[in-house]
Amino acid sequence: MIEPIPRIAAVPASTPFVGPETLARREGIADLVRLGANENAFGPSPRALDAMRAELERAAYYGDPESLLLREALAERHNCSPEHISIGAGIDDLQGLLVRSYLGEGTAVLTLGTYPTFMYHVVGYGGRAATVPYADDGSLQLDALAALAREPRPRLVYISNPDNPSGSYVKREALERFVDRLPEDTLLVLDEAYVDYLDETYFGDTVHPRIVRMRTFSKVYGMAGMRIGYVLAPPEAIATFQKIRLHFAVNRIAQAGARAALEDRSFVENVKRETARGRDEYHAIGRALGCATLPSCTNFVCFNLGTSARAEAMVQELLRRGIFVRKPGAPPLDGHIRVSVGAQRERARFAQAFEQGLDALRAAG
Amino acid sequence: MIEPIPRIAAVPASTPFVGPETLARREGIADLVRLGANENAFGPSPRALDAMRAELERAAYYGDPESLLLREALAERHNCSPEHISIGAGIDDLQGLLVRSYLGEGTAVLTLGTYPTFMYHVVGYGGRAATVPYADDGSLQLDALAALAREPRPRLVYISNPDNPSGSYVKREALERFVDRLPEDTLLVLDEAYVDYLDETYFGDTVHPRIVRMRTFSKVYGMAGMRIGYVLAPPEAIATFQKIRLHFAVNRIAQAGARAALEDRSFVENVKRETARGRDEYHAIGRALGCATLPSCTNFVCFNLGTSARAEAMVQELLRRGIFVRKPGAPPLDGHIRVSVGAQRERARFAQAFEQGLDALRAAG
Repeated sequence: MIEPIPRIAAVPASTPFVGPETLARREGIADLVRLGANENAFGPSPRALDAMRAELERAAYYGDPESLLLREALAERHNCSPEHISIGAGIDDLQGLLVRSYLGEGTAVLTLGTYPTFMYHVVGYGGRAATVPYADDGSLQLDALAALAREPRPRLVYISNPDNPSGSYVKREALERFVDRLPEDTLLVLDEAYVDYLDETYFGDTVHPRIVRMRTFSKVYGMAGMRIGYVLAPPEAIATFQKIRLHFAVNRIAQAGARAALEDRSFVENVKRETARGRDEYHAIGRALGCATLPSCTNFVCFNLGTSARAEAMVQELLRRGIFVRKPGAPPLDGHIRVSVGAQRERARFAQAFEQGLDALRAAG
Repeated sequence: MIEPIPRIAAVPASTPFVGPETLARREGIADLVRLGANENAFGPSPRALDAMRAELERAAYYGDPESLLLREALAERHNCSPEHISIGAGIDDLQGLLVRSYLGEGTAVLTLGTYPTFMYHVVGYGGRAATVPYADDGSLQLDALAALAREPRPRLVYISNPDNPSGSYVKREALERFVDRLPEDTLLVLDEAYVDYLDETYFGDTVHPRIVRMRTFSKVYGMAGMRIGYVLAPPEAIATFQKIRLHFAVNRIAQAGARAALEDRSFVENVKRETARGRDEYHAIGRALGCATLPSCTNFVCFNLGTSARAEAMVQELLRRGIFVRKPGAPPLDGHIRVSVGAQRERARFAQAFEQGLDALRAAG
């Protein structure tokens, strides 16, 4: 067999996320409860669904490679122009473009154990990463990140805000101070997949010459299966992505759904209310079972199992009971399981299985 | 603004295909007849549509990143194993993976003016291309391609078969002889987007250690808007793609639609019949209007306008009349327009506009 080029041959085999379908098949589970990928149990919006159903009639036709209508709608929403926006098949796609364009074999700075797909792209494009651990309370250590941004002089600094998997969140003022401390030749990547769950205006919709902001329709909009996200960035960065992006990456039905989803604000408000209710329920479950939870402003909550081994054992106990959750890899979060806010019935199934799982862990010593 | 890395900064701005939406907006046309992207006016299959409509109910959930069910269905169809198959968001996506993995800054050999997106990827990943022109009759010059495959010793040889935009087609025996003449360290890329329109078994479903075959659901299956295609390749190549591919690139609804589409053989047969009827009609139009057409085994036909300038003028005449077609860029095809087989009503509109366009061209001298 012919060998790939050395740069690609050197990339280790890795899979950022094993899919629940693979887990379900491995375990022989027909109706896995999916609480491991932070999907939105309350979505998508009925208006988005209607739009997508209607658009299926035109499934034989390529979607608009420029996503003109969607970019205009987003520009209006974010007080910028369509030249500040590029559409991709989810944030994963856009992060790949960004790493390919700006990092290459350079260095990125990020928190160890944060969103694995960013690191997957760094490695895949031959880059290196300098990482800092989470703080003891699961928050990001901005001072340490800012220090690394001066030396080794990275091209990219990556923050997931709100952070996944910790659920923590850097507020506007702290973020602004952080941006001011970054060197002028460093680009800040804000992965804002969960930003729509926040109540306040957060960081505004400012387009900053050194900030690239990633957004998605997979979370609050409940369209993870449709693969659509966008990036807000300086026009020069958008023009760079334009030179190398896959022009027909984004499904036509997804584009129609995203436009309709943007218009249904009351649906989004309802998702936020239901998600907050689910988070409260999870925190209450944790208190009732003597298992601490981390604060979260997202659609997931981390439960503290104490050690990485116990957290991993709990993932397996839950899987055996038909429930899919994930376990963060980096300390101190590696002693936690991360549980997405499901629908009420799913949360009830989780509560029951979690209690049984804790009993099983205790019995095993 | 921060600069991209030099390798990306060096990539020229280019767009492989300007979308019909952009053209329609530029011209102020509300109901453009799309005969320029070889979309399937008869698709998708009603069974695929039903499956996609049903799957929309699960749009909030990520699609299977391994596409297990679809890869199994394809493996059965092609007499290989799922380890020979990778799914992507269309052939464009898969060609990007291939060029990134195997070409890098190396050299590719291909026919000048064939599928532009392959060349877009070659340039985007810093590669070079050695090209041969089309033969006078619009067929591929395999001898010249084979000669280039010995020197400059390319990593990849690319053939679109059936070819786009010529509509010509290399038969099995000639293809086998060609493969035998390629150096052992050269990978042959067969872009088989239009292969499903062929009547015979063509090149079989053989998985060859030096051949990578690209297939799509965009053409005969009529699902261009869904963005889904696949590659048949040696397991080592699939494992390489696995290391760098976007794991969640493919829309969940598209996966469900593709599975259902594969099962509806009678729909495919019907598309082939209707497409053949449309091609015959186009050839008859050409004869009636004194405009030669190229033979085609695909869902498009090239009409000979004589010169590149006249062909370009015809594209504009047709656009002004609300009809979108494309013009190949490379000689001798650059004197042609390429017209997709539309539905009957679309073909009738084309026939009328084409006749008017020819009159206008004659009047203009």
